[in-house]
Amino acid sequence: MTAEYRERRKRLGCLLEGRGLDALIVSSLTNIRYLCGFTGSSGVLFVLPDGEGTLWTDPRYQTQAARESDCRVRVVRGPLLKAVLGLARRRDLGRLGFESDRLTVAEYEQLREGLWLGASLEPEAGLVEKLRMVKSAAEVEAIRQSMLIASEAFQRTVASARPGVLEIELAAELEYQMRRLGAEKAAFDSIVLSGERTAQPHGLPGANRLAADQLLLIDAGAVRDGYSSDMTRMAFLGEPGRKVKQLYRAVREAQEAGLAAVRPGVTAGAVDAAARRVLRAHGCQKAFLHSTGHGLGLEIHEPPRLGRRERTRLVEGMTLTVEPGVYIEGFGGIRIEDTVVVTSNGCQVLTPASKELLLL
Amino acid sequence: MTAEYRERRKRLGCLLEGRGLDALIVSSLTNIRYLCGFTGSSGVLFVLPDGEGTLWTDPRYQTQAARESDCRVRVVRGPLLKAVLGLARRRDLGRLGFESDRLTVAEYEQLREGLWLGASLEPEAGLVEKLRMVKSAAEVEAIRQSMLIASEAFQRTVASARPGVLEIELAAELEYQMRRLGAEKAAFDSIVLSGERTAQPHGLPGANRLAADQLLLIDAGAVRDGYSSDMTRMAFLGEPGRKVKQLYRAVREAQEAGLAAVRPGVTAGAVDAAARRVLRAHGCQKAFLHSTGHGLGLEIHEPPRLGRRERTRLVEGMTLTVEPGVYIEGFGGIRIEDTVVVTSNGCQVLTPASKELLLL
Repeated sequence: MTAEYRERRKRLGCLLEGRGLDALIVSSLTNIRYLCGFTGSSGVLFVLPDGEGTLWTDPRYQTQAARESDCRVRVVRGPLLKAVLGLARRRDLGRLGFESDRLTVAEYEQLREGLWLGASLEPEAGLVEKLRMVKSAAEVEAIRQSMLIASEAFQRTVASARPGVLEIELAAELEYQMRRLGAEKAAFDSIVLSGERTAQPHGLPGANRLAADQLLLIDAGAVRDGYSSDMTRMAFLGEPGRKVKQLYRAVREAQEAGLAAVRPGVTAGAVDAAARRVLRAHGCQKAFLHSTGHGLGLEIHEPPRLGRRERTRLVEGMTLTVEPGVYIEGFGGIRIEDTVVVTSNGCQVLTPASKELLLL
Repeated sequence: MTAEYRERRKRLGCLLEGRGLDALIVSSLTNIRYLCGFTGSSGVLFVLPDGEGTLWTDPRYQTQAARESDCRVRVVRGPLLKAVLGLARRRDLGRLGFESDRLTVAEYEQLREGLWLGASLEPEAGLVEKLRMVKSAAEVEAIRQSMLIASEAFQRTVASARPGVLEIELAAELEYQMRRLGAEKAAFDSIVLSGERTAQPHGLPGANRLAADQLLLIDAGAVRDGYSSDMTRMAFLGEPGRKVKQLYRAVREAQEAGLAAVRPGVTAGAVDAAARRVLRAHGCQKAFLHSTGHGLGLEIHEPPRLGRRERTRLVEGMTLTVEPGVYIEGFGGIRIEDTVVVTSNGCQVLTPASKELLLL
């Protein structure tokens, strides 16, 4: 990985040079991991236009930082940001970029107070995130493995879903299976909802018992080698009625239209529009309460967002979710979600689980 | 809980009045949960000096917000912060506080661009966190339950620790047991380390097999009703040598000295000093790489920090960890940690597990 980290910092350095910056102060822990491999919870990385990186952390991470990171590591007690400025000053650097969408106002004030004549802080949002949008082959492979684990854990878990089981029991089983299959952890709090509660797009499992003739929604993902996956599947405990079948068909068609729209060159908004158009044709676009999907990788939500009017153009190597859904209060909700990777002429679905409505 | 939320907002309102603010824009999701009960991942809460609150969220959380929160709920598509300013302007409010230690610079810029003549943004750090430091009886009870769950899960898990078992298997088992015992989830990625790897205060479990004649460190906590707990216990697979026994005794004495120092009126720094003094007497203060503990509640790390020279004075109802440790590269590390609540004349330890070095 060491070569890959250096390569990433070089690409970042190139962006810095293009923007006339002397350095970037990276404070997002995820961006730090991406740029030098360090996975601790306390760190600041300082990157120069030539790709040289220096990592600051506190004494708890001394050993770990030296082992994980390919950068020079400096261990300090006290505010890391202050220490970073010290280096910038000794090197007489002027234009210092910082991550304005990650740094808090209070941290910014800390930095500002340490400035000297001739130095300035330049807000930069999303520079590293832009690099992260397009995944390397190794990153795609980690996401593929992560998805295989989550899908297999889903299959093992849903097999034990029957009336009387608690939502939280299924969630616990699901995450346990992921870990047994080699995941570091769940990518997010697994969503296991039954009955009318499925109408909450982001509800959390509770002490609710599954009951006959109800919908079951499972939305979950794993983390493998730091990379996330994400999927949603639906089941029905019994024989679904006409309305469930109709809505399921609408969402499935919308999801397939979304998948069919994914290819290099199209905008993120066009994928959203493709899914939304199908739901409109079925008369249920108003019950579609979120965007069609999102990028994912080291974080579960990354750019691009597959939302209305989003103009980011898709590029080969991006990893995305495609997940339209409909939500009707007092009735329930239906969502179908795959993780995909953009290929040279379309996309490859990384979620192996069947997309049929599972009948339990 | 509705009465409790209103009461909390009233206390916050009182602070606002004292600081001459017309309102506080609360953007921390944890603070929002504390002040109105909403647990979703997208929200901004606007609180007036009389304790009136208005919650903004996006359409995904329409149903959930109305059910969970006792405030007026407004659902908007698009930037929530912009919508909040709209209300402030209609009400002709002038001095608007914001959480400077939570809001990013980019979000601040969004707010600033929406300002009008006569309105100003006032940075306020830690106002709600200050209220949160002292727990109500119901909050202490949630933390107690959370700790009982984590401790019982630890007992069940450590029973299966033997040479050949992987660190990650134990971590998976531990978190599964927590869920089975009623936890919503683990409070943080459980730390299960063996052998020399215990020298990393915050290392993460890997595919390392436990081996005979090695240390085993387990640091874990649960979340119950939103509240976290935290504990660390040590085991040895075999018969420990003299050095392990000596270090263990030193850390245990330091931990007990820390516990003995906790009572209303003393500073957080005094507790740290009490533990540090014992390690100094044993000649291992340089191997103590972090502070003695931290507050915990809705978040796993909350103020106060039990660190050097911290001047916050302890108050009855604060919940804290006390967790000195020593870390020696190439040898291993030892940490002992309890969660405690400050009582009227000392503290009550909430972690029931024995503090003997477990021999497996």
